[in-house]
Amino acid sequence: MFPMPPSDQSPSSNPPYRQVAIVGVGLIGGSIGLALRQRRLAEEVVGIGRRQSSLDKAMECEAVDRTTTDLAAGVADAQMVVVAAPLRLVPCLVRGIAEVCPEDGLITDVGSVKGALCGELAAIGSFVGSHPLAGDHRSGPDNARADLLSGKVVVVTPLPEDSKSHGTSRKQRPGLLQQLTKFWESLGARVMSMDPGQHDRALAVTSHLPHWVASAMAGATPEEWLPLVATGWRDTTRIAAADPDLWGQIFTENKAGLLEALDRFEDRIARMRHAIETEKPLLSLLDEAKRIRNAVGD
Amino acid sequence: MFPMPPSDQSPSSNPPYRQVAIVGVGLIGGSIGLALRQRRLAEEVVGIGRRQSSLDKAMECEAVDRTTTDLAAGVADAQMVVVAAPLRLVPCLVRGIAEVCPEDGLITDVGSVKGALCGELAAIGSFVGSHPLAGDHRSGPDNARADLLSGKVVVVTPLPEDSKSHGTSRKQRPGLLQQLTKFWESLGARVMSMDPGQHDRALAVTSHLPHWVASAMAGATPEEWLPLVATGWRDTTRIAAADPDLWGQIFTENKAGLLEALDRFEDRIARMRHAIETEKPLLSLLDEAKRIRNAVGD
Repeated sequence: MFPMPPSDQSPSSNPPYRQVAIVGVGLIGGSIGLALRQRRLAEEVVGIGRRQSSLDKAMECEAVDRTTTDLAAGVADAQMVVVAAPLRLVPCLVRGIAEVCPEDGLITDVGSVKGALCGELAAIGSFVGSHPLAGDHRSGPDNARADLLSGKVVVVTPLPEDSKSHGTSRKQRPGLLQQLTKFWESLGARVMSMDPGQHDRALAVTSHLPHWVASAMAGATPEEWLPLVATGWRDTTRIAAADPDLWGQIFTENKAGLLEALDRFEDRIARMRHAIETEKPLLSLLDEAKRIRNAVGD
Repeated sequence: MFPMPPSDQSPSSNPPYRQVAIVGVGLIGGSIGLALRQRRLAEEVVGIGRRQSSLDKAMECEAVDRTTTDLAAGVADAQMVVVAAPLRLVPCLVRGIAEVCPEDGLITDVGSVKGALCGELAAIGSFVGSHPLAGDHRSGPDNARADLLSGKVVVVTPLPEDSKSHGTSRKQRPGLLQQLTKFWESLGARVMSMDPGQHDRALAVTSHLPHWVASAMAGATPEEWLPLVATGWRDTTRIAAADPDLWGQIFTENKAGLLEALDRFEDRIARMRHAIETEKPLLSLLDEAKRIRNAVGD
């Protein structure tokens, strides 16, 4: 895990991308489209989706320049293709795109789980996975914002072989990681690079577990007591309102990472419980947690 | 548990209270002082504390009209005394105040746990417990705000005997509950009345458990992964930054309620875990939690 140096891309009158295609124009896809258009980074942003009604909404929000439901036609001239579709559809979509997009095209995704996916797509030389840490409990292109990625971290997940100078099974095209880094940085994001498996273990704790815990907390609250919730409950359970379909997929896809994170969490709960049950000091555990939380800021 | 009717207090040129004393002028005490002064509800607001430096800060923030470190002198003429001191000091303070404050004086507190406290103070006829659901992860009078209680719920906890029309062990002075309700409503709060024990069981879930869970979540996050946290982790762990001393006391004081709430939470986690481990549907659990969370609003 290392932060990438800022790109040296200089301002120019010609947008750096001729055409960028976004497959799935929801919250993330829509925000990428808005940022590309607002920053004049592409001559054309194409929105691709399965339902014309969703694409119409993306046009209304001015997230894309044109739309199509025809995947092959949509990516045919794209230098850059961002797959922002539901996790389970990504492998199939990437394979389809790789067959028809330009030879120098770069394909990435925005999925929250990377290990299995990146392994499965190792043979696709034009693909490198990405994960923008910029979700929201709202969804859809109507909640998209041009600055959604601004200052946020995007993790890019090249295959481990690509980090080794003497790799024997190098499959990804050289220079792809640099191109991808440049792309996310041009949208205002900070880029970190991690092995896909390491990404999944870390994100299980920093992202998937909070959703799991928020859902359990909300689900464990009897409805007759809801008038008695205050700021703490609201904050702690806010992301329980996130899309259950999306999160069900993420939990399933990162089952191993999630269960490891859950063990870690349950162990902490057990230590706190033991302290309270045996009237031993709880304060050092609370202090440590406060210190960790304070390190992150509001 | 029932909402109280709004008070019929009419606007008048004479403030309804001659003198209100606030023992402990931190976030809650300071906010009560600010609201009393801004709404011209008292001729004088007296701030009482152990350390002159804290009282000076409260004066600077204009939360009180004058201050003293002498409890007996501070409450001698107060019609209304609000004890906003650390939980473990409340019983002793209330007993001391009851001995020296005017005969028609009303004493309340703002503590988060009520069962043991209200039982212990049952003999003090001028005391009824209160719990404003308006905490914050910040503390101190510098974070006090005149509108902190505005629109918030304050739970008042009369002894169960007082709710029975034929109570045989009635100890609280008649009319006290109505006076107390009027007081909180005049500060803009909504008042609910609950049995102290029922309050503790409910608040264990709606307030204490979220702090417990937020602390466990933050504490279970390895520091090297902190650059990878996003909005979800921030929201879910925000209250882990709350005062460990205060929350250690609350957890200890409401041990029984907390352990019951924790059982409820762990049962929910176990059901979710079982679903993911056996590849059974998780969606209905996530859906239910989302519905409960949505019922509360942002």
